[in-house]
Amino acid sequence: MNASPLKVAALIFPRFELLDLFGPLELLGLLKDDVTISLVAQVAAPVASNQGPKTIPDLTFEQFEGADVLLVPGGMGTRQEVDNAVLTDWLRTAATRSKYITSVCTGSALLARAGLLDGKRATSNKRAFEWVKSQGPAVHWIPKARWVEDGNIFTSSGISAGMDMTLGLLARLYHRDISLSIAAAAEYIWNEDSANDPFAEEN
Amino acid sequence: MNASPLKVAALIFPRFELLDLFGPLELLGLLKDDVTISLVAQVAAPVASNQGPKTIPDLTFEQFEGADVLLVPGGMGTRQEVDNAVLTDWLRTAATRSKYITSVCTGSALLARAGLLDGKRATSNKRAFEWVKSQGPAVHWIPKARWVEDGNIFTSSGISAGMDMTLGLLARLYHRDISLSIAAAAEYIWNEDSANDPFAEEN
Repeated sequence: MNASPLKVAALIFPRFELLDLFGPLELLGLLKDDVTISLVAQVAAPVASNQGPKTIPDLTFEQFEGADVLLVPGGMGTRQEVDNAVLTDWLRTAATRSKYITSVCTGSALLARAGLLDGKRATSNKRAFEWVKSQGPAVHWIPKARWVEDGNIFTSSGISAGMDMTLGLLARLYHRDISLSIAAAAEYIWNEDSANDPFAEEN
Repeated sequence: MNASPLKVAALIFPRFELLDLFGPLELLGLLKDDVTISLVAQVAAPVASNQGPKTIPDLTFEQFEGADVLLVPGGMGTRQEVDNAVLTDWLRTAATRSKYITSVCTGSALLARAGLLDGKRATSNKRAFEWVKSQGPAVHWIPKARWVEDGNIFTSSGISAGMDMTLGLLARLYHRDISLSIAAAAEYIWNEDSANDPFAEEN
């Protein structure tokens, strides 16, 4: 599919949300030989998710050299990590070394605190929306969207929405037929319209 | 919600499928203080998924004492593990110590080889269906179902179907309102009808 495999790197931090991370990685992983996946953490030690299960990073921040797709999950851990300057500094550097920057759920709060969303359109989890907004006053937050694309930055709504966004990204990177093929392989019912957001609160 | 938290235990083995495991655990994890989650492996060492990311087990087979819900994911690793007598022996014992037994995707091949599905209705991944059937000639395999319930055994179709099955299980364990509340928190569009299987091949 590619001349060289798609390089995917995903940030992990204590109390990341399981599906924010592994939903998108499942779908990207279905590119099989055409993808490499690396998990990146601040230090080389196991990281416990918000639900408990622990994951081992492949790279530390210092070892990260760049990616085609950078994935930033959300989760309760973002409440602490927004104040972790080592992490937000790394995100700024990592963004310059990545072709596409993506976040799921409250992951967009981390991108916002790194300044990467200033002046751009973005979205986040419905139930944490006011808190996320407070992390990025210069961001144009979109309350009703399954996911939002602004240039090379894709941000999704809460948890499960990351999978729909990932298929949208694959349609951009390759072709809609690739997204449909991967959705079928995963037996996943793709909510293909990024504006179709059944969980947006009516205001 | 419960007098004591729901005890969930999930089997992991080399090359398990990421979403088979972490989709259901995400949704069960949204029970928050009302659930405990343990990953169980043959030995106390990190286990690499089919997509690469590595997870650390909480318990070995010997340390497992029982669960309310036992979850068996699928993935390419099942092709080897069906011939792993230590694993299928453990599954038989674990099943006697678990109130509900669930599998996602080709996880039902492991349950079949352990003899746990003999004479019962069950389903599996569409693209591996013939192989899975060959692992359990005495099983009544259902080719068109998002998931199948037979007594205390729930088996789902491929990968993403595990999440729909999990919400079906929560409706059985608690109430449909709990499933709807958890789906909303995860911003997950629940395919609530177990007979609605858009990926079944037309024969």
